[in-house]
Formats: sequence, structure tokens, C-alpha cells
Amino acid sequence: MLSTTTLFLVPICRHGIFKHHLRRLHSKPVVEYPLTHPIYTIWASNTSLGKTLVSAGLSISFLSSTHPKKFIYLKPVQTGFPDDSDSRFVYRKFYEFLAYKPLPFSVSASNHVLKVSVPAAKSLLGFVDGIGKGENIGIQNAKEGKFFDGFENVGLYEERKLQGSEIGADEFGNSELVCKTMHGWKEAVSPHLAAEREGAFVGDNELLDTLKRCIGSALGGKWCDKGELDAMCVIETAGGVASPGPSGSPQCDLYRPFRLPAILVGDGRLGGISGTISAYESLKLRGYDVAAIIFEDHGLMNEVPLLSYFRKRVPVLVLPPVPQDMSDDLINWFDKSQTVFTSLKEIMFSSFIERMHRLHDMPKKACNILWWPFTQHKFVPQENVTVIDSRCGENLAVHKIQSFDLISQQFDACASWWTQGPDAIMQIELARDMGYAAARYGHVMFPENVYEPALELAELLLEGVGKEWASRVYFSDNGSTAIEIALKMAFRKFLFDNKGLLDLTNGGMDEKCVDLKVLALRGSYHGDTLGAMEAQAPSPYTGFLQQPWYKGRGLFLDPPTVCMQNGLWKLCLPENMQTEKFEMEYVSFSSRDEIFKSNRDGSSLAGCYRSFISQVLLHRDSSGFSHIGALIIEPVIQGAGGMQMVDPLFQRVLVRECRSLKVPVIFDEVFTGFWRLGAESAAELLCCQPDISCFAKLMTGGIIPLAATLASDAVFKAFIGDSKLKALLHGHSYSAHAMGCMAAAKSIKWFKDRTTNINLMAESRLLQELWDSELVCRISLHPAVHRVVALGTLCAIELEAEGSNVG
Amino acid sequence: MLSTTTLFLVPICRHGIFKHHLRRLHSKPVVEYPLTHPIYTIWASNTSLGKTLVSAGLSISFLSSTHPKKFIYLKPVQTGFPDDSDSRFVYRKFYEFLAYKPLPFSVSASNHVLKVSVPAAKSLLGFVDGIGKGENIGIQNAKEGKFFDGFENVGLYEERKLQGSEIGADEFGNSELVCKTMHGWKEAVSPHLAAEREGAFVGDNELLDTLKRCIGSALGGKWCDKGELDAMCVIETAGGVASPGPSGSPQCDLYRPFRLPAILVGDGRLGGISGTISAYESLKLRGYDVAAIIFEDHGLMNEVPLLSYFRKRVPVLVLPPVPQDMSDDLINWFDKSQTVFTSLKEIMFSSFIERMHRLHDMPKKACNILWWPFTQHKFVPQENVTVIDSRCGENLAVHKIQSFDLISQQFDACASWWTQGPDAIMQIELARDMGYAAARYGHVMFPENVYEPALELAELLLEGVGKEWASRVYFSDNGSTAIEIALKMAFRKFLFDNKGLLDLTNGGMDEKCVDLKVLALRGSYHGDTLGAMEAQAPSPYTGFLQQPWYKGRGLFLDPPTVCMQNGLWKLCLPENMQTEKFEMEYVSFSSRDEIFKSNRDGSSLAGCYRSFISQVLLHRDSSGFSHIGALIIEPVIQGAGGMQMVDPLFQRVLVRECRSLKVPVIFDEVFTGFWRLGAESAAELLCCQPDISCFAKLMTGGIIPLAATLASDAVFKAFIGDSKLKALLHGHSYSAHAMGCMAAAKSIKWFKDRTTNINLMAESRLLQELWDSELVCRISLHPAVHRVVALGTLCAIELEAEGSNVG
Repeated sequence: MLSTTTLFLVPICRHGIFKHHLRRLHSKPVVEYPLTHPIYTIWASNTSLGKTLVSAGLSISFLSSTHPKKFIYLKPVQTGFPDDSDSRFVYRKFYEFLAYKPLPFSVSASNHVLKVSVPAAKSLLGFVDGIGKGENIGIQNAKEGKFFDGFENVGLYEERKLQGSEIGADEFGNSELVCKTMHGWKEAVSPHLAAEREGAFVGDNELLDTLKRCIGSALGGKWCDKGELDAMCVIETAGGVASPGPSGSPQCDLYRPFRLPAILVGDGRLGGISGTISAYESLKLRGYDVAAIIFEDHGLMNEVPLLSYFRKRVPVLVLPPVPQDMSDDLINWFDKSQTVFTSLKEIMFSSFIERMHRLHDMPKKACNILWWPFTQHKFVPQENVTVIDSRCGENLAVHKIQSFDLISQQFDACASWWTQGPDAIMQIELARDMGYAAARYGHVMFPENVYEPALELAELLLEGVGKEWASRVYFSDNGSTAIEIALKMAFRKFLFDNKGLLDLTNGGMDEKCVDLKVLALRGSYHGDTLGAMEAQAPSPYTGFLQQPWYKGRGLFLDPPTVCMQNGLWKLCLPENMQTEKFEMEYVSFSSRDEIFKSNRDGSSLAGCYRSFISQVLLHRDSSGFSHIGALIIEPVIQGAGGMQMVDPLFQRVLVRECRSLKVPVIFDEVFTGFWRLGAESAAELLCCQPDISCFAKLMTGGIIPLAATLASDAVFKAFIGDSKLKALLHGHSYSAHAMGCMAAAKSIKWFKDRTTNINLMAESRLLQELWDSELVCRISLHPAVHRVVALGTLCAIELEAEGSNVG
Repeated sequence: MLSTTTLFLVPICRHGIFKHHLRRLHSKPVVEYPLTHPIYTIWASNTSLGKTLVSAGLSISFLSSTHPKKFIYLKPVQTGFPDDSDSRFVYRKFYEFLAYKPLPFSVSASNHVLKVSVPAAKSLLGFVDGIGKGENIGIQNAKEGKFFDGFENVGLYEERKLQGSEIGADEFGNSELVCKTMHGWKEAVSPHLAAEREGAFVGDNELLDTLKRCIGSALGGKWCDKGELDAMCVIETAGGVASPGPSGSPQCDLYRPFRLPAILVGDGRLGGISGTISAYESLKLRGYDVAAIIFEDHGLMNEVPLLSYFRKRVPVLVLPPVPQDMSDDLINWFDKSQTVFTSLKEIMFSSFIERMHRLHDMPKKACNILWWPFTQHKFVPQENVTVIDSRCGENLAVHKIQSFDLISQQFDACASWWTQGPDAIMQIELARDMGYAAARYGHVMFPENVYEPALELAELLLEGVGKEWASRVYFSDNGSTAIEIALKMAFRKFLFDNKGLLDLTNGGMDEKCVDLKVLALRGSYHGDTLGAMEAQAPSPYTGFLQQPWYKGRGLFLDPPTVCMQNGLWKLCLPENMQTEKFEMEYVSFSSRDEIFKSNRDGSSLAGCYRSFISQVLLHRDSSGFSHIGALIIEPVIQGAGGMQMVDPLFQRVLVRECRSLKVPVIFDEVFTGFWRLGAESAAELLCCQPDISCFAKLMTGGIIPLAATLASDAVFKAFIGDSKLKALLHGHSYSAHAMGCMAAAKSIKWFKDRTTNINLMAESRLLQELWDSELVCRISLHPAVHRVVALGTLCAIELEAEGSNVG
């Protein structure tokens, strides 16, 4: 319930990057590109299938029509350099073609090489010398010395002006072909091997950053409003879709933050159908959109099964066979292939235009037909709608219209309604697992059946968050349903233990006389279905306007809370506890760890809490037919209620008092569960165990809805009997659905494994602090900050809202 | 609520196979294999990577250890035959190796070719003649004439006994190598091309059936209890993982019903890392488990990035380089490679043993730790638990222990708790889309954001099931939450229209005085969260034992129903309608279509319904502060309440009466929606429109939980105002999650498209009847059948249960 305040909630993450979270919120995004002109990545299902031929063919087709236009060709990673230089090939074939078939207007063509490894730079010098005098070629910066990480910043540059055949050919300005190689290595092997062997390394982020700058400088970001697209850009990858980049990351992962639309160069040879389909599937499994498939004809009619596989999804184009004669300059082939390249270009254009239009229309359409939860639509004008193009780990890629259109990455500070867990690597692993689970199981019904993901997840839950107390797992779809189930379990257990109230054998007695209530804390939140609402104290969210059936069937206590104010941890007692019994010495803590220390159990404050709780319960008991059938709390932190940290000592005492009275205890760990607070469950921090516990949100790694209600054996036994009517008759169609269980099993293991979660501390079951205490103190001193809760991986900062909408 | 009866509920499906559904229930499963010995499929990421070398190496490694043992090698599809014959290669290399390195015990080796195309058979005659006299080879059935579909049943058979070197080598019986080619074509091209060019066709099912018989006859299904596995079987595919089979289906789809564990032969060449990863991902995207990756070393260290990609998931093995000299007989290479093949064999064994143990343990573990919904655990002994290994379209693959262990396909008659939609093709397409959606979006928060899958789904819903009445889509997670939201919407609309009851501006008045109720039909079911329960009439499912908070906040009417009894459609009036006004002539119908005819609106029965309803509502109105705030019905069929068909005329009249009184109308189409009854929505069959409508289950094609509550503009407007508190403050963390929206958008389009749903009738928006009326009549005459509802694609048959568990 984000009401008058703005809360930043920080997701758990394997990288320690969130230490600088606030700074990053205001820093530049990692990846960004203008959406003013088509930019495509050229992929292939294997090496040597003709990516460069496709790039060259496109450049000719694009620049041969009207003018002035600009075609940008980028090769981020080139091995076998300088013998192999794809950017030089594109540049050369372009001018050779124009020599053969001149254009009426003039074109400037250039080829530029930025950085190459030392061995490649040495070869390059010989290479340049060997080129005939006719070439306009030069190495601008070769002598400027070594660049970082084993590269030389060679700055090889060659250009030609290709004079148009018509009079006044230059009148409207020149068209341009810009070719660039970003990084070159000498050996013709996989980039990760070349980088290692030649000692020239470039990290994934650095490579993306260079790429961003190359795109930005080439396209300039000005939208052409002449009704025709006056520029396009292609980025050619190296090898196959999953071939390693220089760092060893598969290229499909490396380039994923851009998520540029793809052209896939397929394989027309024997075996090529399979390779083409598999490469397409690897691209889809990383969230790429493939605009077209193109491949060289080898006479095997590979397009027939490919078209059947792709149905209407992706156009498939076939290029004429490439001459095998090595001396052939391919100019005739390019000429013959122009109709295919023109079709490809048109597909790329129309796909781009369609995407643009859709992105522009989305905010308006969203305002017209969506009904967002928790949203007063009157307050959301079209321009406030965020258009999300994709997510990559912790970052969203959003469409923005500033001076021009952009796709821009930004950190997801809202953490996806508090579900955000996976980083970019885990997201891709989960994606593959989701595909696998859907393919293996689709959906299967759960009752009386067993299948691996559901069983494995149940085992992991009982070994993990349910360890030492839970014996059964009941699956449902979300936190709210998990709570509804927990309440049904608790009430049955209570009635089972109080057989005087209900003779379970006969189902007799006057049910109207039994008014079961929950004991709950004010400010807690358990979900929006009626049963979950009833366990919450009255608030605007439960009011008559929202659900006239809500009564608030609880005894709601104001809890003592702990928070950091002006750099100091303080205890805030509710009014009805502010008696002389509660002494001042307990009001503040020297450190956060002190708040959680179990030696506080022996303090006089603990005694005060105990007597306060007994008094409340005693008073309640005297009021007739009303009974406390369950205690429900959010352990440690009340999430949606404003990120309040309840004094853990108070919750522990409360749990123990209820236990002694045989009132079943429910922990709502929907928000706190699975490392949100730095431990797998908040119960661990509280040092006490429930009878029933609810989990959802981060359980699946934050990718898909699934919830689990864990129960002790004593609770389960209250449902065993000789009639089906004694069973728990609550279920949903997708109970324990395979995809959810698979994601959850994966995530639980991932978060617990030090090889995948480097934030896990070696010696303990806790995550490293991602926010250092000094930073937390500093934040808490900021005038706009009302309250700071810093705990393990969670940092909730409550800021004064500007222009709050709530009365 | 499957209580005293057994209901068979038939899913929608693009094939017309369900006409013979009941027959199929008792017919043999399509695919089945013994789980007594390891059976693996050998895949490769491209053609010519050495699948056959791996098969041969495994055969040598397996049969060289102890004895007697049996190794079965199957090649279902062989092109280039007889020049290329992988089964003959395995057979030959085996005896050549044994000649080089004799074993102490004897081994019989054989190679058998079943059917080949006519051109291949012709070549074969020459081929056999060309073989030296030393070979024991014969064509048994070559002259028996043509087999079906252009094949000759050649029955080529060759065998050798390889005498052991030790005295008493035959004492414990011979070990055996059995090699088989199932289908051969002459041309060395892709099987689909060869099949076409040589006119020799084999369908996917026929191929699987032959394969099943070959496996069954070879393994015999007897579990070896000597503590050691005495047989293993490998099936070698042709080309790459997605290379087309003879029918044109990608082989990974073709063999999917078996879902045998896989060995992937990767690619050690330049570009091979990518191909290996992509091939692995294509296998995963079809639900296969890959036990190991093995590839030939080409000196490029491809294992390094592969191991990094596969982490601990899959072992990666590297074979020594294969001699390039064509005259090399490879015997030395096999010798050198034995340690690698032995490791591979051990991985295959331990993976098999692990799977076996797990399958055996699952029922017990399930009984110990799972808590199934709607299940009295006391009634579910371990042996009643079904172990589901996977699903392929309409069929489940289950683990059975009969005289021996089996994986056996069976038709899913329970239709996955009523969510079953996709056939095998759609399941694989959805799987790929689920992977894509997870990779592209993970999860993103919904409020004030827009992203493609959510927007597209909303558009499809409003153009489809919401056409002409709905203007907004509210997403949630399941049917129950969709109903909770619908009730909140309806009550607000009611209060908005009755401003006298509640001054919306001030939020004033005494809320306690307003007792809002729903009008609902007895026997309807809307979900298990408290709000949804409250809209249902009291039943054992809503009793005090289940949820003590339930009151039943409705005015519940007994509806008139229609059902088929003894082959005749009959109207059954509830007791309180059985007055003389309702004449006998209406009691039966000549056909089912007649029941739905809109000219019944003018009948006197319609008048009687009208006056009955007015009377009820009038009576209600006089009772003080209690108001009917909403009507909620399941249109046409009350699903969980026992598959009752309510007289559509009655529901239509009821809706119109409520409309005239400004009581908002909710349709619960969670069960009936998305073609379950043969039309996209049951509202279409009812010929009237609601104000609010709820959808879930089949909306996503039955693969993942997602729900939508559709509302009219008038309903939406009741939430617009100057305060956030007037907004609908109900939400779940995964509202409008990308994977669910993607699956739903895909499914809605898939079901509506005649190219993918061949059951859709050309001229109308209805599905073809999959159950012919004659069959329905015949079923309804069976003594065990209590009630039959046949409607479009749905056929619900209520059978008398044997040994019902319910008191």
C-alpha cells in the first residue's frame, strides 16, 4: 500500500551493486539507443553462413534507392584480423558494386577500425603497406601507444567518395556508408580464445558501452520527418548466436541488454534446418524478436520445412547460391540477389515502423482499456504511463520520448511490486526452465498425483523455510489465497483443540454462537480477498467503499515498532503501552543487531510485553462467545503497511503467549520470505516458529505467481478423518502448477548456493549487508526521509511524497 | 467439486479424435516403454558429428565388461541407404574391435534392416551381392512384395558369433549386440525429402509404433535383479535435433511422446559451441532431459565455454580427434576412446538408476509431505498415487509398476482439473512463448505501466469475449480472485446507482445498516476464497468445518435445469416453481438447439419465469435494509456444482429483470469461457450480456494461472473520482504477469484461427460438435450414467461412483 509516501525497495541480487543504489537511480543508464531509425543485429546459426554478405547486400540495397541516406555497419568483435575484416569487406563490396553499377548520386564510403590486439596491430602495419597506392587508407593513432587491456587504439581509417553519374549528383548532399570494426584480434578462433591468447580483453559492459556510443554518434538521434527513413544500422555478431564473445559470455547473452531486433542468417546445407531452428529458439529464449530468416540456397529446399515450422511468425528468404570459385568477386551475385535484399530491407523497415507506432500508441491504449490495481485512473494522464519494452535483470528497458525516441534502461526501483529477485543471468536460466516445464508438463492436475517439480519444491520448502517445524505443503496461487488457506487451517486446528466448542464427530452445535476472531497487529496487510481482508485492521483499503462485506474480524493490537531516526535505532511504543512500567532505557539501541538479540527475552521489557498481552487476551476471554482462533503476523516487518519494523521481542513474546493458550500461530512471510530481509525466512530472525506459514512473491524468484502454505503435522492431523468433508476443501485450477514449482525450486536452490549467490556469507545462512550502516545513517539524516529500515538486503526508505494524492 | 460422481470432461482439441473418446479411454496407449533398462536417444547438434561413433563406442564399452548382456542399437530413420547404414557400422565396428581385442566370453552380433524404399531395396540387392562370402548375410523377405506406402519389407539380416577366448566362454550364455535399421531411403538427403522423392512415406505415429515394438521386443520388460543392469538401448536420430523426420516434423517433436533421456553429440569445431548450446536448448524446449554432452576434440577447447554454460547441470565429455584418413578403420581410435565411453556409459547408468529410484519413491514421499486440495489424505494410500512423468498434448505419461516398470501414455480424462486446452503442437509453441516471455520481461509491475503482452491480451479480450459490452480489463491470478474483484465492482456500481444508500462524496451514513447481498443460483460455484464462497449457497464446501466465517450472503434461487435422460432433453423445474402456471408442454425438447432458441423469449414459460423472479425480488425488497447488490451466475452450465445445465431461458429472463432494477450482473465464465461449450463465451449461447464477466482456466490455453475480470464502462466510472480511495484497491503481486498474458494472447488467437483450430466451423463462431448426438444418446441410456450434458466441445457424463467416499 504505497500511499502518502514513496518507498524504494531494493531487490536481492547476486552482485553487490546495490550499495550504490541511490546513486545509480540518478546515474546514466547502461544501455540506451535511439529509436529513430531501424537498428538490427545480424545473427547466424553457425559460422561462415554469410552474415557479412547479407550486411553488404543490405547496404547496397538501402543506399541505391533515393538519397541522401546513411547506412551504418558495425562489427563489435572481429577475429582473424586483419586478413578477415568484415567491415572492410562490406566497404569494398560496396564500392566495387558501385563501380560496376554506378548510382546517379554521390556516396561517401568509409571503414574505420577502433581497437585491435597487439598481434593484430603488428600484422596490420604489414597489411596496410601491402595495399596498393589507390587506396585512401591511414592509421591515425597507431603510434599513440597502448590502450588498456592489451589493445592498441589503431584508428585505421579508409574512405572513398563515389561520384554520382548524374549532373548535380551532390546537390542534395552525399549518401554515406559508415563501416566500423570495434575490436579486432589476430587469430581466426572464437573471440574468447583470441582474447585470452593475445592478452587483449574487453568486458561485456565495456563492449556494450562502446557499441552504444558508436550507434549514438552514427545515428545522432534525430528523427527523419521527411516521411522516409534516411538511415539504418546493422550490427554483425561473430560466429553463431551462442558463440562466446571476448569475455566468454554467449553473444546472445552479451547483447541482451540492447535486445535489438534480429535478422537470423540460417543454414541452407544438409543439417541446416535443425541449426536454423535451434538458433532461432536460442534467440527467443533470450527475449529477442526475429524479424526475418535468410539463407543461401544449397538446392535442398530447406525453406519448405522452415516455412512450415515458422508458420506466419517469421518471413523466410532464400538467397541464390554463392559462387564457389574463390576468385569470383561476387558482384554478379550481389546484382542477382538485389531483389531478395530489397525484400529483406522492406521487412526490416515495416517491422521497425510497426514497432514504433505500437510503442507510441501504447500509453493511450493502456489508459483506454486497462484497469490498473490500486490506481485512480483520473490521476494517470497518458504521458505518465511507462512503456516497458523489456526487463534485463534489475533493469527495465523503457520507451521514452524526449527530444527524440529512445529505448533506455533504468533501474527498477519499484522492484516489480516487490517480487524482483533474478539478475540477468538467473532470468535467462529461469526462462529456459519455464520453457522446459511447459514443454514437459504443460499443466497437470495435482490432487492424488505427484510430479517432480511439485515434489522437489515441497522437499526444498520443508528442508528450508519449514525446517524443524513444518511437515506439509499446501499450494495455491498468490499470497492472498495462501492466507485464506492458512486461516482455514488455523481455525480447524483451534476447533480440533477445543472440542468443547465443536464436536467434530457430529458437526453439531449452534455455529452461530461461535464467533472466531484472529489476533493481529494493526498495520499488517495480508491480501485483498475477503478472508485475508478480514484479518486486517480497518483502513481505507478495507472500507465500505472497497468491500461492503468487510467487518474486520480481529482483535487488532498496536505493536511497538523500531525504526531509525536521525541515525539512531529507536523503540516507539504505542499509546496504550506508554505506562511507567516501560522504562526509558529500552527506548533506543546501540546497533541493529542488538534489537534481534535473544538475551532481550530476559529483560524487564519482555516481562512488560508479556503482562500486556496476557491482559489483552484475558480481557478478551471474558467477553462471551468470541474466541481468538488464530494469531496472524508479518514477522519483523509489516510490508504493505508502510515498512514498519515491529519490535521482534514483542512478536516473540506474542507468539509464545498464543502457543501457551493453544492459539495457532500464522506467519505471513509473503513479503519477508526468501531472503528479502537477508535470511531465508523472517522467522529465523525472530527466533521462533509458527504452526502455519505463508510464502509467495520471491518464492519463484519473482517470475511467476505461486504460493505455499506450510503447516505442522498437528495442523494437518486436524483434517484427517473418515469423511471427505473433513478434508481441506479449498483449491484452484492451477494448484502446484509445474512452471511455478519449477521456478521456485530453481530459485530456492539458486539463492542458497554460494556459487550462484555471491552475497551469501560463507559461515552463516545470512546475506551480506548490501547497504553499509554508514550509508543508512546518512540517508536517515536527510530531511525528506521519514523512516529508514535497513535489514539484510532490504532497505526501505520512506520519503515525503511530493503532491500526494490521498486525502 | 467431484463428490459422489465421476465426471469425464473432455478438453477442446484441434483433432477430431475425441469423438471416440470413450473408446480411447479403454484402448491401448500410443506410446509406452519398459523402464527396466536404460534407453537413451542419441541426438546431435548437426549432421556428421559422430552420433554413430558414440553408439558404437558405447556398445563396445557396455558389452566388454561382464556378461551376459545385451546392447540394442536402433536407427529409426536412415537415408543414403545402403551406402550409409549406421546400424551396419555399429555392427561392423563392434566385431572388428573384438577381432582386434577379443573378449574372454562369447558375443552374438546381428544387424537387421526392416523396411526400405524401393530405390534403396534395388541398390541393396547389388550391395549384398558385392559383399564377400565371409559375411553371413541374407535378405529374408525381399521377394514378399511391396509393403505399404512405398516401402519394401526387406528383412535384411546379418549376424556373427564372436567366440570368447576363454575356456567355457559360453557358460553363462552369450552376450548380444542387436542392431536394427527401421526405415531406409536411398538418397543421402533429409528424410522428408528422401521420403518425398522416393515415394516411401511413414507417418509419425506409425514410426513411433514400430519403435515401441522394437524396444519392447528387444528388452522384453524383465527387470534384472542381479544387481547389475544387463541391457541397454540407444536410439540414434538422423541429422540435427530439429532436422525433419520422414513426415517433415522436426525429430525433436516427432519423438517427444517417448521423452526418452537424451545424449547430445555436440560440435567441437569453430562455431560448434553455439550449435551445441542451441541444440541443447531446443531439446529443453521440448521437455527432454539431457544426461550428457559429448563431442570430438578439434583442438579449440570448446569444452571450456560449454562447461561454463552448463555449470553443474550436464556433464561434458570430450572424445579424442577422429583420424581424418579415410582408410583408417578407427579401431585404434575406439580403443583410445574407451575411457570416455565408459564414463559416458556410467553417467547414463547412474542417471537411469537415479530416475528409477526417484520414480519409485515419489508416491511415498507425496503421501508424506504434500497436502492435496479437496483430498481426504486418509483415503489415498501410496499405491493410489499417480506418478506423472510428463504430458504431451492430451496424454499424460505416467510411471506404472505392473509386472515390471513402465512409462505409459494415457489419455487425461480429468483434463487437468478442467484446464486442458493445448494439443501437443500447441503445447510446444506455448513452451517457446513462455521461455520468450520470461526472458523478455521476467516480471514487471503493472500499475501505471504498459507492456505488450498485457495490452495485446486486453485488446483481444475486449474484441472477443467482451465484444459490444466490456470496456476495461482487470487482471488477477485465478477464478476466485477474479470473482472477488467482480463483487467489489458490482457493489460499488450498485452503491453508485443508489446514492441514497451511500453518499459517495462524503463516505457518510451508517454502513452497518446496509446489508448487501448477491442474487445467485443454488448449485453454482465461484471459488474458495471467502468473498467467492459468500456468493455461493451453503453446502458442505462452505460449512463451518471449512471456514467458520462463512455466512452465505446471498439470496439463493433453485434454478430450472435441462438435462438428457434416456436420450431425451428434459426441463426439470424446482419444487417452488411446480405450480399449474408451468405447463407440461415445456417439459421436454425435440433437440438441444431448441433449448437455446431465442424465440422461447415469447413463450408463456418465459412469462412464468418473469413473474416468479419479480415476486422473489419484490418480496426481498420489502425486508428492510437488505439489498440485492449483484446478480452472479455461471451462464448455461454450473461446472463444479455437478455439470448442471440451467435453462438458458431462465438465466436470460433473470439477467433482464436484474438489469431493469439496476442490479449489476456478473457472469462467472471461469469454467465456461474460451470454447469450453463450443463458443468463445457462454454469454454468446445465452444471447445476453453481463456488466462484469470473469475468465480464467482455459484463457491461457490451460498452461499457467491468470484471470481477468471484464467490466463495462459504467462499472469503471463508478471508481473514478478525486481520491485514490475511490479507486479499486485490490491487487496481487503478479497482476497481469507477462508469461500469463503471453500464453493467453497466444491461446485466444490459436483457438480462433481456423488454420490452427480445425474444429472451428467455417461459417460461424462455433466449434464443430465433437460428440455426435447419437453417441450422446447412447451414453445417456447406459444404466450407470446419471446425467449427460453434451454441448459443443464439452461432454460431461456423470457416472455412478463405485465405493463413494462421501457420507
